[in-house]
Amino acid sequence: MAEKGVKVFGMWASPMVIRVEWALRLKGVVYEYVDEDLANKSDALLRHNPVTKKVPVLVHDGEPIAESAIIVEYIDEVWKDGYPIMPSDPYERAQARFWAKYADEKCNAAIYPVFTATGEAQTKVVHEAQQCLKTLEKALEGKKFFGGDDFGYLDVVVGWYAYWLPIIEEVSGAKVVTDEELPVLKAWFDRILAVDVVKETLPPRDKLLALNKARREQLLSA
Amino acid sequence: MAEKGVKVFGMWASPMVIRVEWALRLKGVVYEYVDEDLANKSDALLRHNPVTKKVPVLVHDGEPIAESAIIVEYIDEVWKDGYPIMPSDPYERAQARFWAKYADEKCNAAIYPVFTATGEAQTKVVHEAQQCLKTLEKALEGKKFFGGDDFGYLDVVVGWYAYWLPIIEEVSGAKVVTDEELPVLKAWFDRILAVDVVKETLPPRDKLLALNKARREQLLSA
Repeated sequence: MAEKGVKVFGMWASPMVIRVEWALRLKGVVYEYVDEDLANKSDALLRHNPVTKKVPVLVHDGEPIAESAIIVEYIDEVWKDGYPIMPSDPYERAQARFWAKYADEKCNAAIYPVFTATGEAQTKVVHEAQQCLKTLEKALEGKKFFGGDDFGYLDVVVGWYAYWLPIIEEVSGAKVVTDEELPVLKAWFDRILAVDVVKETLPPRDKLLALNKARREQLLSA
Repeated sequence: MAEKGVKVFGMWASPMVIRVEWALRLKGVVYEYVDEDLANKSDALLRHNPVTKKVPVLVHDGEPIAESAIIVEYIDEVWKDGYPIMPSDPYERAQARFWAKYADEKCNAAIYPVFTATGEAQTKVVHEAQQCLKTLEKALEGKKFFGGDDFGYLDVVVGWYAYWLPIIEEVSGAKVVTDEELPVLKAWFDRILAVDVVKETLPPRDKLLALNKARREQLLSA
């Protein structure tokens, strides 16, 4: 018989996993968190997500769900009487999904090279990341959160930028999100970092910084 | 004031656009179809989708929505009393979204190289495409459609394989979906091609074949 309850298979430094924790906490759902060693994944993780083998995986009453943005929608649909994560209007919902896809496919791909680039190549990739984020920023203009007055689906999906981007900047020595280039996004960072579920779940900055410094050195020496 | 009604900006040979037409027809929604010259996009398309500039775009009472899989969900949500496209159960819905993402990100990327590869390289990419499709095929085992007894969301998203893959095979001389390698998917192709909304909307085979032959020659000579 399937085990009852809610379990999250994650990795403490993953900005994709934290989306799931935010969504569960917004709903007030009690969950068990299982931290994975990604170099030596558990049998349980591989059994629950044989297709991509990635974290996060949410296991709800024994049934596994993978892909962070899909898990967030699932949580919103199952605990539908709790905090509303998705916009209630179908058009707003489609827009939130569009921007989430844009951020995950375009901006994340544009941000990643900043992590390892150096010298002139860095200037170029920083500019490309900024261009992508400027497009995304338009969806935030005139609003407190992407979700409007309240922290919503798109904030859950891209909220990691507020904590992880400054770490990428510190590790790489690049400046991406500045008052000059991305003032709206930068001001939103402060609001994201003040949200309760965010404050409760962020990994220790020094530990995250050390891990990302080590990763960068490893990638640069490879 | 925004124009009332439903308009689809598409391109007749696009397997992404046809998803939107299938979803609208399943719901019995009357729409205007605008065919775009992708080498010379209309001002209307660029105004409606300034971010990715891609088709399809659905314009509903003047409000534009982009990204085919997102448009399909929107159509299901807005015309919610019509034919049910998404599964009604949240877990089934999450699974359908997971496989749609897997197909779009992994399988389409694995299929594309088949289109242009030749010789030994072709054998390798055909094998990779088959491996991806074999994983996807598991979601279909024991069922008539990915949606169960009825043509549903995941069928709408991956249904184009049934018509476009044989064309890619003919153009490239490769065999991907065979009775030996992908029997479940191959049998599903026949069922997809018998669905009314599919039959009504498929572009003429000779025209699609000619376009794809020309594209392949252009890519190989580049």
